[in-house]
Amino acid sequence: MELRTLAERVAEKFPVRERDLRRTFEALLTTDNLWEVLDLTDIPIMTFCELWKELAQEGLVEVKDSSLRLTPKGRELAAFLEITPLRDFACPRCKGRGIEIEPLKEVAEEFKAIARSRPEAIRDYDQGYVLEEVTVARVALMWQKGDLAGLNLMVLGDDDLVSVAASLTGAPKRVTVIDIDERLLDFIQKVSDKEGLKIQVLKHDLRYPLPEELQGAFDTFITDPTESFKGMKAFLSRSLSCLKGPGSAGYFGFTRREASLKKWQAIQKFLLEKGAVITDIIDDFNVYANWPYMESMRAWEHLPARALPQKEWYKSAHYRIELLEKPGPDTEVFPVDLYDEETATV
Amino acid sequence: MELRTLAERVAEKFPVRERDLRRTFEALLTTDNLWEVLDLTDIPIMTFCELWKELAQEGLVEVKDSSLRLTPKGRELAAFLEITPLRDFACPRCKGRGIEIEPLKEVAEEFKAIARSRPEAIRDYDQGYVLEEVTVARVALMWQKGDLAGLNLMVLGDDDLVSVAASLTGAPKRVTVIDIDERLLDFIQKVSDKEGLKIQVLKHDLRYPLPEELQGAFDTFITDPTESFKGMKAFLSRSLSCLKGPGSAGYFGFTRREASLKKWQAIQKFLLEKGAVITDIIDDFNVYANWPYMESMRAWEHLPARALPQKEWYKSAHYRIELLEKPGPDTEVFPVDLYDEETATV
Repeated sequence: MELRTLAERVAEKFPVRERDLRRTFEALLTTDNLWEVLDLTDIPIMTFCELWKELAQEGLVEVKDSSLRLTPKGRELAAFLEITPLRDFACPRCKGRGIEIEPLKEVAEEFKAIARSRPEAIRDYDQGYVLEEVTVARVALMWQKGDLAGLNLMVLGDDDLVSVAASLTGAPKRVTVIDIDERLLDFIQKVSDKEGLKIQVLKHDLRYPLPEELQGAFDTFITDPTESFKGMKAFLSRSLSCLKGPGSAGYFGFTRREASLKKWQAIQKFLLEKGAVITDIIDDFNVYANWPYMESMRAWEHLPARALPQKEWYKSAHYRIELLEKPGPDTEVFPVDLYDEETATV
Repeated sequence: MELRTLAERVAEKFPVRERDLRRTFEALLTTDNLWEVLDLTDIPIMTFCELWKELAQEGLVEVKDSSLRLTPKGRELAAFLEITPLRDFACPRCKGRGIEIEPLKEVAEEFKAIARSRPEAIRDYDQGYVLEEVTVARVALMWQKGDLAGLNLMVLGDDDLVSVAASLTGAPKRVTVIDIDERLLDFIQKVSDKEGLKIQVLKHDLRYPLPEELQGAFDTFITDPTESFKGMKAFLSRSLSCLKGPGSAGYFGFTRREASLKKWQAIQKFLLEKGAVITDIIDDFNVYANWPYMESMRAWEHLPARALPQKEWYKSAHYRIELLEKPGPDTEVFPVDLYDEETATV
């Protein structure tokens, strides 16, 4: 039994490589929990579901009491291929992020208290926010890199409440938020008024270019784009257009849970073409709280087991870019549903 | 006084942006030690030297007892521009790498004992090795990513002794080293014989394509290229050519101490064109031991102060890539000195 042959069969429908199959076996030797397997494999969910069906058909895997397992035949193949369980060397202190948030303890506590009454994530805008400690770590990272103190920060879409955590440090000169969700804008405005944070709160639909006064006006952007290629392009085009120019920096999360590496490559090409250089990609930096509309995800009915996750499992890498050249005018309108799940995955 | 005007003047000779100037001021508010400033600014050394001369001419900075300082005029400008000291949020446990090496404690101890008698770094091949804990962290990272256990690893240039640390774990199926330095090859061969590591040790000059039997034969490569663009291209072309194909992975260090972000961008474009995608860039992952030939560096005579560093200061980012397509045949010969310092910096 060749892993390659199996991979090639699935690859007719989804981009699966021999490596992905190997990793799936490694993950199944490490845990029997669906969500942990999804976390470990780094394969887009829909691709994983497709792959699972093939493996089940071959009699290599099975589901028992909602647990994912290799069958005796599957274990035999794993042994033959000398596949072993995965090793986890993530630093237990910073969870592999490399960032220490202890010096921002007071900010973190204030932020957590505020976030307790945040609006819940809704499906309409593909929302899903990161853990509070992650929002604080994002702020610490920007500060360390010299992208926060005394500078103008733009947050494009802010269900993670980065604008609030950043403002609580007192470091940035000015913080601006744009979002399409009025619940969020109201919440941030109220927090800002109450805490005296002076956050500038604006409603904007990212399918359209930014208003002129926001273009070329910021030192740093941070955003957490949706995963469709068009959505990603829209988020990043607007983000780049708000920067002053060479030396300005930007941050965004991008996942492998829903986006293939092919899409990663396309996004990287797009960024380089726009005059940016990638300075950091920190894997699994962003960990997302489980969102309430999980059972209405497109992938849900394709999953091999349908027990809701008990722990966080959805993660994304955190990118940092710097501009070397001006990205050029941003005029393209994206008259589509940026959050459409059909285009958003794989 | 505009930072931009100053930056533009230096930029006629070296790629300096307003951001770099700002960062230099931030660094000078944080420390007065030359090597710490070089570490913090993330500007290529030669560019920093040039920038320093301009700043000194403007009466903004000075050297006193080998210490770097802002003059009263410089401090005034920093205050006017609301520039503040840098904040360091690097995790104290993993030094910001995100990788825990404690589970590999025994390997690390064995490795350190072996490395005690390693050949010293020499200038001929632009050598300079990373701290022993970094070599172990590199191995842990590959293991965690599923790029080590049961697989074929190729190390291209190995003054860091990655081949030894990787083999000591017992995880890889086969480890191969190529290098041009016979002192190193002899050392690794002797260690391999003594410890029964079965490392395959080969002499090769990376200006030339790999011998046919090494092409397309490995799951993973790791290398630490020289900083000239041609040298970098040579190292990475050979590295990519040794990989089996889609799903194979590669690791390399790349610095901002000697290479500008312009060069970073060129390397990223090169990698994407070759069918790779960048999955990780971990800043300051690689920390290098101070090398004995520091005073014969090209930059030495241009430095504002010439006291030797007491602590490590030379760092590089650690890249990980994955192949999505075959990189195509590797036939180019680079008939130049890959280690030439004139081309290696900036």
